[in-house]
Amino acid sequence: MQGVLVKTQVSAEVWERFAALTIETSVALTGEVRIEPRSPGGIEISVTELEIIGASPLDYPIQPKEHGIDFLLDHRHLWLRSPRQRAIARVRSEIEQAIHDFFYARGFVRVDTPILTAAIGERSGLFETEYFDEGSAYLAQTGQLYGEAAAAALGRIYTFGPTFRAEKSKTRRHLSEFWMIEPEVAWNDSDDNMRLQEEFVTNLVQRALERCARELSVLERDTSPLTLVSPPFPRLDYGDAIQFLKQHGRSIAWGDDLGAEDEAVIVAEYDRPVFVVNYPREAKAFYMKENPADPRTVLCDDLLAPEGYGEIIGGSQREDDHDKLLTRIRAEGLPETAYDWYLDLRKYGTFVHSGFGLGLERTISWICGLGHLRETIAFPRMMNRLRP
Amino acid sequence: MQGVLVKTQVSAEVWERFAALTIETSVALTGEVRIEPRSPGGIEISVTELEIIGASPLDYPIQPKEHGIDFLLDHRHLWLRSPRQRAIARVRSEIEQAIHDFFYARGFVRVDTPILTAAIGERSGLFETEYFDEGSAYLAQTGQLYGEAAAAALGRIYTFGPTFRAEKSKTRRHLSEFWMIEPEVAWNDSDDNMRLQEEFVTNLVQRALERCARELSVLERDTSPLTLVSPPFPRLDYGDAIQFLKQHGRSIAWGDDLGAEDEAVIVAEYDRPVFVVNYPREAKAFYMKENPADPRTVLCDDLLAPEGYGEIIGGSQREDDHDKLLTRIRAEGLPETAYDWYLDLRKYGTFVHSGFGLGLERTISWICGLGHLRETIAFPRMMNRLRP
Repeated sequence: MQGVLVKTQVSAEVWERFAALTIETSVALTGEVRIEPRSPGGIEISVTELEIIGASPLDYPIQPKEHGIDFLLDHRHLWLRSPRQRAIARVRSEIEQAIHDFFYARGFVRVDTPILTAAIGERSGLFETEYFDEGSAYLAQTGQLYGEAAAAALGRIYTFGPTFRAEKSKTRRHLSEFWMIEPEVAWNDSDDNMRLQEEFVTNLVQRALERCARELSVLERDTSPLTLVSPPFPRLDYGDAIQFLKQHGRSIAWGDDLGAEDEAVIVAEYDRPVFVVNYPREAKAFYMKENPADPRTVLCDDLLAPEGYGEIIGGSQREDDHDKLLTRIRAEGLPETAYDWYLDLRKYGTFVHSGFGLGLERTISWICGLGHLRETIAFPRMMNRLRP
Repeated sequence: MQGVLVKTQVSAEVWERFAALTIETSVALTGEVRIEPRSPGGIEISVTELEIIGASPLDYPIQPKEHGIDFLLDHRHLWLRSPRQRAIARVRSEIEQAIHDFFYARGFVRVDTPILTAAIGERSGLFETEYFDEGSAYLAQTGQLYGEAAAAALGRIYTFGPTFRAEKSKTRRHLSEFWMIEPEVAWNDSDDNMRLQEEFVTNLVQRALERCARELSVLERDTSPLTLVSPPFPRLDYGDAIQFLKQHGRSIAWGDDLGAEDEAVIVAEYDRPVFVVNYPREAKAFYMKENPADPRTVLCDDLLAPEGYGEIIGGSQREDDHDKLLTRIRAEGLPETAYDWYLDLRKYGTFVHSGFGLGLERTISWICGLGHLRETIAFPRMMNRLRP
């Protein structure tokens, strides 16, 4: 809170203490609190007493000047105290509550899927740890497969937890530890799935606009592009996306996955999030449902955020046919025994179902208008960053 | 939903399909849905059409008979479908939403603290993984230290995430992966901290009673003991607890921590949760605030749940004096360099603050009246259990 002292209205001791105050000192103030529209936060205190609770030496590391990003990340525990970082933290917390409220209101059951998981075949980018006498455990990259088992029991579920990628990527869009929200819904097909995504993302953006106006203003976020976010979102077939990218000079062929730069070229065409749908089977994970209209492709979507942000969601209808799924597992050289329980879901009363994963940090980054994911989480973890 | 078929009112084909149905088959039913108080769930469908969506072979592993616990855990992905496990999952989800609502309504900011953390000295029970070129990372046993940094920035914060203990314990009260909720509040002293705990736990129990009546009934939970949970909770000084335990034949001495059996003896005396407060310094973690009234002890509390459940919360006021904290770090032989950032919180504007950690699975277990933590989470992780 902003405070005002008038020398003639306080004791000499209080004035002396005030004059000697250093940045980040903890103080107890006594005085009249008033509404004051010109004050940051809208209120102000006319100080009559000032007590020092916790002093702060003059060497406080973060000064009102430019600091390099490594220096700031080294002092993340103090950097968090800056108005900008506080604003991001508050937006993140508000979006998190909005996520819970969204699913709670729609009868979803939250399910906490395991972080420590057994081997599921040769995969890259996994953090590994010794697990008692059970051999190696790996930190989960997704909770989805477990979420599918839970959806078979409970109908509509979602997960909300940390996921891990041990990938040596140093981009503004990657963290080695990040949070994902993964709903999974029994009886939803790919279309239902995309409608849920539209409703969900719109809800989160609306919530931020409604309840985080002050924080977005601190972040100097131009909110006008956010006000355009409303369903339906355009749907671009993967084949058409490749055509479009080629026409715009990108070197890409049918069968390739889209890279960040490809996504940027696409989203520049739209004023709201856009779906790219029905990718080639080879570009996507084994569990996605074969597209009956074109079996070279699968029933999936990536949702790309506008303003250059790109992918924030990956979703799909899941392969519910036991034999087709088994064929895919074999074709990818995955160990059948590791997936026996997952196959059971198709063996004992299979059902159409779909789900998606929303990357929390990417979503926060877009809503806040940030240039890098590292500011969206209290203590970011990247390739070269494990401390503090 | 319960369905009823009357042979004379359906076609021969539908009756035939019905007669051949096996457990866990996915079906689409057509018919009139009615309110029917005698039906589980309160509604019932009079079936006129029945379509098989996903068949289920006769070897469905879980049959209406007694199965051993290992067999059930091996088939956890299917066991989740049983009414009892579904009820527990729903109570867990409701309590989780209640936790978020509780803190949101009180202006707390949710902060996601890191799972992957750097070495903080020789500690047992840590899962270790290689972290790029940074050496070893360890899975967090708590988010508290990070939560304190966030409370210095944001005032009132809470964490909600998985925590890990690589301890070779095989008790009904331990999992190697479990979820903790850790609020941290600037300017709260130990008394404020306990009042917050009382209000919080009472709120969660009330929410379960109000919104999970059906689930608690499926679990055959006698809810009368839960209705007694209301503030204030009795507070038992650690010294008095030791006296009491000795009088009841326990072999324990001043300075010892309380074991599960000690806790059981204490909680048997009370009809609601009870605090045991101000433990000896040696029995507790280095960061707890020295008790000015008796410096052999610290300002802390364990909250023990009634009906034999024991500890669900550990809380404390934190040592806010830089030099005392440094002395404790040295006395415990912890590496100062690993705690430099934590000491900074006391160097630059220290402040009274307190917090606690609630074990989610223990709380769910108590509220649901379960005998073991393993049923409180979708895919429990224990010493000998990493699959499915």
